[in-house]
Amino acid sequence: MEILKNKAMEVAMKVKKLGQDDPRRIIHSIKVGVALTLVSLFYYWRPLYDGFGASGIWAVITVVVIFEFTVGATLSKGFNRGLGTLLAGGLGVGVDYLANLSGQKGEPFVLGVFVFLIAASATFSRFFPGIKARYDYGVLIFILTFSMVSVSAYRFDEFLTMAYQRLSTIVAGGAICIIICIVVCPVWAGETLHNLVTSNLDKLGDYLEGFGGEYFYCCDDEEQVTSIEKDKSFLQAYKAVLNSKSMEDSMANFARWEPKHGNFSFRHPWKHYLKIGSYARQCAYHIQALNTHLNFQPPNPSQFRTIIQAPCNTLSSESGKALKALATAMKTMSDPSPTSLVHLNAAKSAINDLKNCLKSATTQTPDEPSNLLAIIPDATVASILIEMVKSVEDLCEAVGELSVKAHFKSVEGSVAVEKPQLLHRGAIKPFVEAEGEDENGHHVVITVREIENEDSPQKKGSSDTNGFVNKK
Amino acid sequence: MEILKNKAMEVAMKVKKLGQDDPRRIIHSIKVGVALTLVSLFYYWRPLYDGFGASGIWAVITVVVIFEFTVGATLSKGFNRGLGTLLAGGLGVGVDYLANLSGQKGEPFVLGVFVFLIAASATFSRFFPGIKARYDYGVLIFILTFSMVSVSAYRFDEFLTMAYQRLSTIVAGGAICIIICIVVCPVWAGETLHNLVTSNLDKLGDYLEGFGGEYFYCCDDEEQVTSIEKDKSFLQAYKAVLNSKSMEDSMANFARWEPKHGNFSFRHPWKHYLKIGSYARQCAYHIQALNTHLNFQPPNPSQFRTIIQAPCNTLSSESGKALKALATAMKTMSDPSPTSLVHLNAAKSAINDLKNCLKSATTQTPDEPSNLLAIIPDATVASILIEMVKSVEDLCEAVGELSVKAHFKSVEGSVAVEKPQLLHRGAIKPFVEAEGEDENGHHVVITVREIENEDSPQKKGSSDTNGFVNKK
Repeated sequence: MEILKNKAMEVAMKVKKLGQDDPRRIIHSIKVGVALTLVSLFYYWRPLYDGFGASGIWAVITVVVIFEFTVGATLSKGFNRGLGTLLAGGLGVGVDYLANLSGQKGEPFVLGVFVFLIAASATFSRFFPGIKARYDYGVLIFILTFSMVSVSAYRFDEFLTMAYQRLSTIVAGGAICIIICIVVCPVWAGETLHNLVTSNLDKLGDYLEGFGGEYFYCCDDEEQVTSIEKDKSFLQAYKAVLNSKSMEDSMANFARWEPKHGNFSFRHPWKHYLKIGSYARQCAYHIQALNTHLNFQPPNPSQFRTIIQAPCNTLSSESGKALKALATAMKTMSDPSPTSLVHLNAAKSAINDLKNCLKSATTQTPDEPSNLLAIIPDATVASILIEMVKSVEDLCEAVGELSVKAHFKSVEGSVAVEKPQLLHRGAIKPFVEAEGEDENGHHVVITVREIENEDSPQKKGSSDTNGFVNKK
Repeated sequence: MEILKNKAMEVAMKVKKLGQDDPRRIIHSIKVGVALTLVSLFYYWRPLYDGFGASGIWAVITVVVIFEFTVGATLSKGFNRGLGTLLAGGLGVGVDYLANLSGQKGEPFVLGVFVFLIAASATFSRFFPGIKARYDYGVLIFILTFSMVSVSAYRFDEFLTMAYQRLSTIVAGGAICIIICIVVCPVWAGETLHNLVTSNLDKLGDYLEGFGGEYFYCCDDEEQVTSIEKDKSFLQAYKAVLNSKSMEDSMANFARWEPKHGNFSFRHPWKHYLKIGSYARQCAYHIQALNTHLNFQPPNPSQFRTIIQAPCNTLSSESGKALKALATAMKTMSDPSPTSLVHLNAAKSAINDLKNCLKSATTQTPDEPSNLLAIIPDATVASILIEMVKSVEDLCEAVGELSVKAHFKSVEGSVAVEKPQLLHRGAIKPFVEAEGEDENGHHVVITVREIENEDSPQKKGSSDTNGFVNKK
């Protein structure tokens, strides 16, 4: 009895936590309950029952099957169900007509052959990636309805009455679903996607902002130890970005179906979020590489580390700030370039500082001239941070493109009036890069980044479409 | 007309390609067609129709809805459908009885309240991650059946006859589905998971085996250029590993349902594949970091690069060979330790060579003493390769654990007879590591890897459960 009570308490706690984490879950459950109770009226309420009879059950089935958490998913399923039912119904009636021509004996055979052929080829079509992603459910309904129509038509004479009753109850059930889904506290797939991508950028930014402090933190500093123990969570949060692809893909697929909501229009560039997501994952892979170095604290920090500390710290925190500026711009749906470019350029200037430090590193540390081995971990961190800036730049470009495509509001109102078409194109000149790179001729690391850039598959077709960040 | 013809040709080519890529798709489509045609007999064949009447349609619905590509998915859906239907049917009858007690007027209200409460709470339960992963479809069917039973029971008097007819046709449809799915060219989710993980290891191995040749390849060598152009594909193949998580998760969920097939028993440790997959992704993240350096070819290779070339080449190719040995062992379901450990230890010994090279690097290259900047890309590649060995070691351990849990066959038959319990535990002594590391005291890079190791979340609980690789 005690065990049962504990178990019940445990479940209750879990339920409470699930509900607190996202109260929309509770609202969704209530919405489904209400929708089902409403369609039950087709049975309970005499006038409706007299009209539709046993077909009322199809309203119930429709509600259960198409009511999804997000509006986009519900609309997508509703559309798929409607289209699949109509197409299959029409085809079923046609096939039935053909089968009738072949006489009493031949009819079942003709029907059987058609059911086989159409079910097999429709099943095969579900392997096409394009159909799988968007119309999988529609094809399923198509097969279902076609089999049901052609098969039951063989036995029912009042076929057309039944078809009419079923179709109208399906439409009624679908309509109730969609109305409740959209009107009562709607959960938009598009908004979810927008928030997901935004919070991923935030997580990456948090990590990079905090990385310098974690990596270069000195063991003597007691206070710092305490503060680190407090908020270690940002060191793990980025891991959610690594496996975010499937969630983003499905949300983008659903978002296409959604009408205008909040700040998002019907033709909001949802596909573009996948590009941002892909760059965010690139960035997360770099962080993953950084993270393996995080807990390496040498007993005596080398002089090399002391030298690179300042520029690396700046590099990391400015990259992080650039990402967080992008996230803020997305949250407020405003032009990201002003703030993010400032930080991006600060990061780029830190690269130059770092390079200068590296150039002079050996001469400054005569006491550890030959121990390349000892400096390799620090050098690797520096190198990864330098590459990270490339990812951050990609992200700045991608979010900049989004802000153009989605007509994010401009921060500089006065400029927008005069020449709006130039607004997102290097409004702030990335002065440091242009200055630094052309003069001191350190092409080694820069070259790495440039070629990597060409190699990246997502890059193709993007670099020529925008000039958001001035490139040399 | 010409356009239509071209379009048709294009579709035909796509169909051909889909079929050629995986002929099991064609077979699956035919299987679904056959199953549907068979259940149509419930309608066409007079004796069956007389027995089941219009309920025969439920056999059709069942086949369409539960017949999935893999056996595991079909069994999982079938089980979910069966359990959901039975539970909801029982509950529906109970609720109906209660509602009856409340009289003619009260009945619809009581029913409505129950439908609302049960639909809402069942919908909420779908948000529990454990239920979502395994019983999502079952809960859907539960809601569907419960609503249908409680609602239609209000109007039908021959309720029990109908329930019996429906249940028996659902069982019949489900049985036909499952038999065809298992007997005719079955596609096993477990086997798919096994092959997916194996081929991912192969892809990572291919990359590492080829990396040295790509990175250090010299522009003068004309022959090599041609050979590189031939097989660039292995440089991209690893990218599939980065996003393999969702596929692996769902296959592992389905595989649990599958009976013994081929070399896989019913209780095959499918969950363990997720662990291997997670380590494989770690390895792929390292490769992603390596890959950004791949196209960097300095006009004049530094002497530093010449020095580290040999050990880095060995390090990379031996790591690759170790992974390919793991893949081969998984393919043949044999003990991976003998071959993989040889390569793993060769890779570890290459780390020591590399460290020695690095120690002496500055002294050997007096002409570029102060240009740390120029050597950083090469040093980073070396550092990533060193960290890679840790991932490879994790993978060796994880595959070794799998070989113990899944009773892979031993390669050394004679040893197995004498002391089988020691078979998978360092059958070959990792001689090189023990020699190298304890003597020359280079703890810097080793320390990095050790601590990273503890930090890795997947690591916990694994290091103490096995001793497959001798650790110092």
